[in-house]
Amino acid sequence: MDKTCSYQLLYNFSYSIFKHIGCSDEDATTATKALLAADLRGIDSHGVARLSGYVRLWQANRINSNPNIHIIHETLSTATIDGDAGLGLVVAPYAMQVAIRKAEHAGTGWVSVCNSNHFGIAGYHAMMALEHNMIGIAMTNASALVAPTFSIERMLGTNPIAVAIPAGKQPPFVADFATTTAANGKLEILQRKNADAPVGWVQDKDGNTSINANELKQGGSLLPLGSDREHGSHKGYALGSIVDIFSAVLSGASYGPWVPPFPAYVPMPEDMPGKGLGHFFGAMRIDAFRPADEFKQHIDNWIERFKKAKPAAGYDKILIPGDPEREMELIRMKEGIPVDVSVVEDLKRLGKQFNIANEF
Amino acid sequence: MDKTCSYQLLYNFSYSIFKHIGCSDEDATTATKALLAADLRGIDSHGVARLSGYVRLWQANRINSNPNIHIIHETLSTATIDGDAGLGLVVAPYAMQVAIRKAEHAGTGWVSVCNSNHFGIAGYHAMMALEHNMIGIAMTNASALVAPTFSIERMLGTNPIAVAIPAGKQPPFVADFATTTAANGKLEILQRKNADAPVGWVQDKDGNTSINANELKQGGSLLPLGSDREHGSHKGYALGSIVDIFSAVLSGASYGPWVPPFPAYVPMPEDMPGKGLGHFFGAMRIDAFRPADEFKQHIDNWIERFKKAKPAAGYDKILIPGDPEREMELIRMKEGIPVDVSVVEDLKRLGKQFNIANEF
Repeated sequence: MDKTCSYQLLYNFSYSIFKHIGCSDEDATTATKALLAADLRGIDSHGVARLSGYVRLWQANRINSNPNIHIIHETLSTATIDGDAGLGLVVAPYAMQVAIRKAEHAGTGWVSVCNSNHFGIAGYHAMMALEHNMIGIAMTNASALVAPTFSIERMLGTNPIAVAIPAGKQPPFVADFATTTAANGKLEILQRKNADAPVGWVQDKDGNTSINANELKQGGSLLPLGSDREHGSHKGYALGSIVDIFSAVLSGASYGPWVPPFPAYVPMPEDMPGKGLGHFFGAMRIDAFRPADEFKQHIDNWIERFKKAKPAAGYDKILIPGDPEREMELIRMKEGIPVDVSVVEDLKRLGKQFNIANEF
Repeated sequence: MDKTCSYQLLYNFSYSIFKHIGCSDEDATTATKALLAADLRGIDSHGVARLSGYVRLWQANRINSNPNIHIIHETLSTATIDGDAGLGLVVAPYAMQVAIRKAEHAGTGWVSVCNSNHFGIAGYHAMMALEHNMIGIAMTNASALVAPTFSIERMLGTNPIAVAIPAGKQPPFVADFATTTAANGKLEILQRKNADAPVGWVQDKDGNTSINANELKQGGSLLPLGSDREHGSHKGYALGSIVDIFSAVLSGASYGPWVPPFPAYVPMPEDMPGKGLGHFFGAMRIDAFRPADEFKQHIDNWIERFKKAKPAAGYDKILIPGDPEREMELIRMKEGIPVDVSVVEDLKRLGKQFNIANEF
């Protein structure tokens, strides 16, 4: 059961919450926009559904609402940033801006970030590059839910990768995906519906294929993109590992099984080898490779040709990465955002806690 | 049936062939090393098995054995290179050197290449960065064999991605994989054995799942990593698309269904939008982010921890990307390289054609 909420309602409420936990006006604005980009784009697991989770991390002193985000190391085209335990929703846009600034000067900019927290959807940060005629890249590690190929131990997060590529007349190409067969948010939806998971999404604690959407609560794990060795799970495992290493081993964040968990009640891992969780961002100026107008003509041609690829029976068109999310954003901006009633109840509680008037 | 050949035998023979088609001593050395890296590392489809294919491309005037490889556009951290229709086996190491040189100065280097040909295995080029204490990245587009999610038309190549990450005491992390569920070379092996393909590797011309390893000869297509929508094939499709765009739309090479085919007898696509096929390379100096010794301590810790992840029943250890290929290289360097008898016959014919003495 959903309740439809306007973007403005969710915006005002989230902004107030971020202000109440101590964010500056500017940071509250940045965090709210990044958070709600998930709801607008249809990635419901990463938007307002997580607002109370961020608040609980702040209450547990794991989020610093007034961070001194700063560069600790840099070259012409790189920077390493310490997020000072800030909201990832604030640290990530800061870091992406640094990548963009580096790219303006050096052609490309690459930023690895330590001491941060969950940053919402990767695609939002990658898309910041688009208006600068740059390709944007964003990735993050996350707490371990995924077992490497041949293993039954959770070693990696769902570690998403986003790549945003500007186009000319066509809308941009925006890929944003977890490096697992299915994102954890997809499992959460099945849990709410009491439905089974498809074969290949999860394994039980002994490594057997499972269709139990609650398997992770019983020691099971998510499977890397590819599901099993025969179908290329070693590739998904490699991708998730690359995200982990670029985000955390390069920056000085915690990695692998030591990444701090999102739920504040879960104890922190012992002997953490770094600070907080890590992200990695890139910005590449199109005209560092080729005149931008030439590139845009060709990327339009690429998109138009792929849209015209012959569809299989039962499908009427081929999608370009980013199409479903963009269409969703247009609809939800106009018609409102359906929010699960359990999330609405959660927001109401949050409103009471901070004494914030709301119209839920 | 295989015949075991020493590395030296294959090296001398391949070198002679490259010399006979007009390569300089230096280019013949570069090409031979890149080509045979595939045989050593166990990727038999990309090594000497392709030597006669390269020769046929040269005979068809599609490979220039004496190319003027040159930078056509650059910034502090980027370059675009025209390969002048050279062997990809020569163009790619040249471009990777440029990326490394850029990284020495700017922290990172990124090179997009047009007007090239097949470059062997991506991992070889990415690994060139390792001795410079850099992370190396290599990718290439290839002629279209893969249908996007929901499509029955071949629009993308197997478009591999390689990422090589230096370690301290541990061997490096080297991921190198096609962005499809299975590489085409895996299908070729099944064809030779008259064996079926696992479900999820290919579809027939109408988009139905198929286990026929010869399906591609009948209008079928390879499936993107993930196999079907429910198992994340849209992610494999996005990855393959990103490789295509970085390699070709950024550089001015041909892309998507217009990438020139490897077999010289296959006619070139009509209305090609660019020159030859494209590659993309990256080099990131470790100490552009963090002191190299610190990074190496942590990457060793990462690797050691992942090796100790709990194995599933029936497995005794968890592999780090690059482990199987490195172990294979040690064995094959010592004991020789098993070459399929059909490939040996092919090499013998090639020897006769160029009047090269050989001991096959």
